[in-house]
Amino acid sequence: MDGWLARVNDVDDNFYNETKIRVRYAETDRMGVVYYGNFFTWFEVGRVEFLRDIGFRYREVEEVDDCHIVVVEAQCRYRSPARYDDELLIRTRLKHFRGPVVRFGYEIVRADNGAEVADGETTHLVCDRQMKVRPLPPKLADPLRERLPK
Amino acid sequence: MDGWLARVNDVDDNFYNETKIRVRYAETDRMGVVYYGNFFTWFEVGRVEFLRDIGFRYREVEEVDDCHIVVVEAQCRYRSPARYDDELLIRTRLKHFRGPVVRFGYEIVRADNGAEVADGETTHLVCDRQMKVRPLPPKLADPLRERLPK
Amino acid sequence: MDGWLARVNDVDDNFYNETKIRVRYAETDRMGVVYYGNFFTWFEVGRVEFLRDIGFRYREVEEVDDCHIVVVEAQCRYRSPARYDDELLIRTRLKHFRGPVVRFGYEIVRADNGAEVADGETTHLVCDRQMKVRPLPPKLADPLRERLPK
Amino acid sequence: MDGWLARVNDVDDNFYNETKIRVRYAETDRMGVVYYGNFFTWFEVGRVEFLRDIGFRYREVEEVDDCHIVVVEAQCRYRSPARYDDELLIRTRLKHFRGPVVRFGYEIVRADNGAEVADGETTHLVCDRQMKVRPLPPKLADPLRERLPK
Repeated sequence: MDGWLARVNDVDDNFYNETKIRVRYAETDRMGVVYYGNFFTWFEVGRVEFLRDIGFRYREVEEVDDCHIVVVEAQCRYRSPARYDDELLIRTRLKHFRGPVVRFGYEIVRADNGAEVADGETTHLVCDRQMKVRPLPPKLADPLRERLPK
Repeated sequence: MDGWLARVNDVDDNFYNETKIRVRYAETDRMGVVYYGNFFTWFEVGRVEFLRDIGFRYREVEEVDDCHIVVVEAQCRYRSPARYDDELLIRTRLKHFRGPVVRFGYEIVRADNGAEVADGETTHLVCDRQMKVRPLPPKLADPLRERLPK
Repeated sequence: MDGWLARVNDVDDNFYNETKIRVRYAETDRMGVVYYGNFFTWFEVGRVEFLRDIGFRYREVEEVDDCHIVVVEAQCRYRSPARYDDELLIRTRLKHFRGPVVRFGYEIVRADNGAEVADGETTHLVCDRQMKVRPLPPKLADPLRERLPK
Repeated sequence: MDGWLARVNDVDDNFYNETKIRVRYAETDRMGVVYYGNFFTWFEVGRVEFLRDIGFRYREVEEVDDCHIVVVEAQCRYRSPARYDDELLIRTRLKHFRGPVVRFGYEIVRADNGAEVADGETTHLVCDRQMKVRPLPPKLADPLRERLPK
């Protein structure tokens, strides 16, 4: 996957993580499509894999470094419905990072034909256990900063 | 509740529905607060009660009138954390309605002290069963139009 | 509601809590009925309201008394489908309580005609924050014991 | 994976599917562990991959063959907590299949050390779109019957 990702990244010049998921029955609703709120869970999956990709395990970021990447704003635009058992790709990019503010962007596309399903953004504040704003320590901030859009 | 709502509405001059919920254990995450994606479920609850309040049962709108109020965009801003067993008020307003496009706005506040928890918006397209855009029939469009902001 | 509950309780001689919920769109799946895993969330809602009814606020039981009623077994039998916007009653009873072991029973029925939707059980161990088994303190154990089936 | 599965199957002589998942933040609750109801979503994931493994795509079973494998009973025993970001294996076996009744068994273990996390069962009735009980057609029943425990 790395090789292919690298190739893609050559094209658009910005790093992103691509994670594949399959739509669960539990995620659908009675309209026969994925319930709109569940896309935010997939954004979380993408965000966590983005961080893993650049060397962070988010669980340890919380437990060891006491940095909690708290959501302050979330947005999703729904382009075409996702259905049960569809394979989807979540593409996660870092859009902004300055001080305690981090913003991720997401694209969700069908794995079979690349058709757009949804895109969105989440904005975060880095906080400690007591929900007090704090900066990321350099060992986390530096690799993140390297993935900012050029 | 109607009387009190009426009073509130005199003040801000625009109709809104207010629905009370209690945070479920299932809705929290390991940070000890409500998972960010679950606010969109509460927006749905508010939206459905707004419609019930002005005379629609959304289930029948789907089943009898073949009108599906499909989400095309959703957004939430998180002001302060919601915690397990908190009682919250969801205030839902109609923000825009023209042709097949409907937009709702939401405020979520603590029931005990009115403190802001979150606010957001959802934008919808009215579609039929086949996801083809269609207008709402007048019996549904008219009561909705009356609740547009003045 | 208290008066009516009391009457019912005279009949079957055992205490139970009855809590009304309305099925959310988010809780349905593409079969058009409630996803089977969501009944366990409703059991949680019933359990928490049962405890509130006999004087406990479960949040404080966790936070103040450091007693966590951890699930060790859960079971549900599905009698008839629950659909979007249905109003349902969750009836929760204490079935067993000895030492650190607590078992609740649940019946879910339609609010309009009393038809059975599901029933089930959950078995719990009382634990502290470190997941070590501990007994409930008397102030919590005594009111619970009074609600054991006669 | 097939080769390794075959080896395991030589040992216990019964076919099972093994599917790996990673615990999502959304699946945890404020106790810091996975919410008990979410295990049933994982059972669904295991069940669907079991069926895929033996040649069924469950989505087509529903859409093309009008066979809905409706849950009539579900049970889970919780052995040890699952935590955020844990990798887990879901092992799904067919336990019973006769006429319209199908029963699956599940074991969930940690991927790193094989420690038991949970096990359970779900019992199903095969129904058509109208929730009327019907048998599976032979093309589906035969491969299923071959995976019954010996």
